[in-house]
Amino acid sequence: MGVVVQKFGGSSVADAAKIKAVAQIVLSERRRGHDVVVAVSAMGKTTDNLIKLAREINERPHPREMDMLLATGEQISIACLAMALQAEGCDAVSFTGPQVRMMTDEAHGKAKILQIDDSVLREALDQGKVAIVAGFQGMTPRGEITTLGRGGSDTTAVALAAALKADVCDIYTDVDGVFTTDPRIVPEARKLERISYDECLELAALGAKVLHSRSVEIAKKFRVPLRVRSTFLPASLGTMIVEETPDMEEILVSGVAAQRSEAKINVLGVPDRPGIAGELLGAVADANINVDVILQNVAADGLNDISFTVPRDDLREAYETVQRKAKEIGAREVKVDDKIAKVSIVGVGMRTHSGVAARMFRALAQAGVNIESISTSEIKISCLVAEADLERAVRAVHDEFRLAQALA
Amino acid sequence: MGVVVQKFGGSSVADAAKIKAVAQIVLSERRRGHDVVVAVSAMGKTTDNLIKLAREINERPHPREMDMLLATGEQISIACLAMALQAEGCDAVSFTGPQVRMMTDEAHGKAKILQIDDSVLREALDQGKVAIVAGFQGMTPRGEITTLGRGGSDTTAVALAAALKADVCDIYTDVDGVFTTDPRIVPEARKLERISYDECLELAALGAKVLHSRSVEIAKKFRVPLRVRSTFLPASLGTMIVEETPDMEEILVSGVAAQRSEAKINVLGVPDRPGIAGELLGAVADANINVDVILQNVAADGLNDISFTVPRDDLREAYETVQRKAKEIGAREVKVDDKIAKVSIVGVGMRTHSGVAARMFRALAQAGVNIESISTSEIKISCLVAEADLERAVRAVHDEFRLAQALA
Repeated sequence: MGVVVQKFGGSSVADAAKIKAVAQIVLSERRRGHDVVVAVSAMGKTTDNLIKLAREINERPHPREMDMLLATGEQISIACLAMALQAEGCDAVSFTGPQVRMMTDEAHGKAKILQIDDSVLREALDQGKVAIVAGFQGMTPRGEITTLGRGGSDTTAVALAAALKADVCDIYTDVDGVFTTDPRIVPEARKLERISYDECLELAALGAKVLHSRSVEIAKKFRVPLRVRSTFLPASLGTMIVEETPDMEEILVSGVAAQRSEAKINVLGVPDRPGIAGELLGAVADANINVDVILQNVAADGLNDISFTVPRDDLREAYETVQRKAKEIGAREVKVDDKIAKVSIVGVGMRTHSGVAARMFRALAQAGVNIESISTSEIKISCLVAEADLERAVRAVHDEFRLAQALA
Repeated sequence: MGVVVQKFGGSSVADAAKIKAVAQIVLSERRRGHDVVVAVSAMGKTTDNLIKLAREINERPHPREMDMLLATGEQISIACLAMALQAEGCDAVSFTGPQVRMMTDEAHGKAKILQIDDSVLREALDQGKVAIVAGFQGMTPRGEITTLGRGGSDTTAVALAAALKADVCDIYTDVDGVFTTDPRIVPEARKLERISYDECLELAALGAKVLHSRSVEIAKKFRVPLRVRSTFLPASLGTMIVEETPDMEEILVSGVAAQRSEAKINVLGVPDRPGIAGELLGAVADANINVDVILQNVAADGLNDISFTVPRDDLREAYETVQRKAKEIGAREVKVDDKIAKVSIVGVGMRTHSGVAARMFRALAQAGVNIESISTSEIKISCLVAEADLERAVRAVHDEFRLAQALA
């Protein structure tokens, strides 16, 4: 009798009726003889509403207080789901992140899990209870409440699955799995039955909305079999995310990711001193902001231009940090472009097949899409494009690799 | 530089604008040179809405999960108030009940505070911060989240004031102090400048909405000077609640309390065995329900009728408990009357003056109000009346003791 960890997102628990439906999914897993641990997100728009309330009070709320505020959303959900299970005669008990000693670092708003003490959950499972854990939240060693950032409930679920050595971690959401691309852009997009951790990791990092990359990283590290499933189609098995197998390499491209939430910062006229780019980007990294797609051009006057992308949500903070640093190092100007987007292809087949990049660039050119810059990894190729070109770009690439067609 | 504890109720923090106004009250106290600790309730109707949500999911939610759910209300408020103070450049930090080690017993939904560890708050105050504490909530030694019951935020504030040996505990609410009676019933009701703990305790226990009796008990025990003030008239000094002084005895009656939230349980045909009343009422007490105004009549057939009142909120549970017990002891029938109310007069002057009860009964009789039963203490007299007669009864008694007239 193994442990199954289930995670339900905000749209799955948006109201009392949906919470009752989720209770039925939990119950049917339990009837199959599993011990069940459930991680839940905040109900529907709760988190957004709390953020809105905070901004009415303080334009730039302190991250510690923001975490104090946002952590309430998940706490409401766990109590409600426990009540729903109890209404069905199922013994259930809810736990906040701090109560299950979900220990994190001190990076409020984007904390990283350091450790979980599984004893509280083991005790509940040993007593035959369904254990319900608040997603998204944790506690620092000093007892401060933290949140793991958007998508953090996925991370909670996978971390719980790893700590409990669960048979599987089912991520229930409002889509039925991982698709070859966003079906709102390409209606013929096809559901993938299986995908490797690395591919999913690239897709997640590239803004595919299904899974948060940190959760996939932890799943990969601890070899937790992950499954993305639909709350509203519980009979469907969704997409399995597993370790890479040799046959996966036969597929050149698994998916096309479209990412709008990017912004570009250009630092112009940077003096040409060794280590100066590191100094600039280091300051951004110190602010806990992820930098991506870095370009450095030597301009005519011997000064350098350095440009890089950051998540659009972090733009304000990144811009302020960069401006401060730019003054310090004597750079001429800092410019911002938040009208850019990224189209990417991902597939483990790229490891062994050449010519994939060329096909992508040609397809984009034929669709009249201008590529601003390119970044690659072993299993992905990303192109920065104007945001206005994004959908056209995705369709062109999806067509080029014939992703709508199921494989034999 | 002493410590001032301030408590703001739900209507004082009902929205972003009101929270900002509360921040101004906190700031002005701080400008007077005090260390300030603030206890806050949940915003506006938050608690009611959470209770409604719970009942949609489970008609009789488990008290542990109810506490898990309700504790979120105050957590939202503390984060918001901290943000509001920070927006004004004031260093502030919020704490949940568990974070300040507000240790309680395990009686979910009506937990009692056992102990507070003041070290976390002292540290915050020593750092020059305003400390904001979630009212209404605590933690058991096992780490379970508890709530103190309705009015529990008052209790939190007074317990904090006692632990920190505060100069004063200001209870900010939507009325400007303690009145001679409910001004909605008697518009000429007068605000009292000063009142003794014992009088306030009686008034609180009798349903005067201003203060929760447990909070007054703690204030009395630890000699915390309490002040009831209006959030919307912060310049007014409200009513001080202090230790009794000899001159207070000159006032016969300080206030008239009207209480609707009562219900009567009649157990008919109880066998006349020694200890049987104790057995019956003990069962109710074991369910953590407060019993008041107990009457026992010997009926004609040698069987007894026992009747008593309970808070109307606890009627369902009390009724079930009593029915079970009544069957066990062979009582004939259990009847319930939830259309009763209680009118009471309170005053330390009763200790030294006689004839007060007679004046009250005469006033009620002249107003045509039938008295169902009477209970007294050293400083109060309560009469059970039909709920329909309540307002008339209150006006008659308020008039009789000329409470609308200020004293020389």
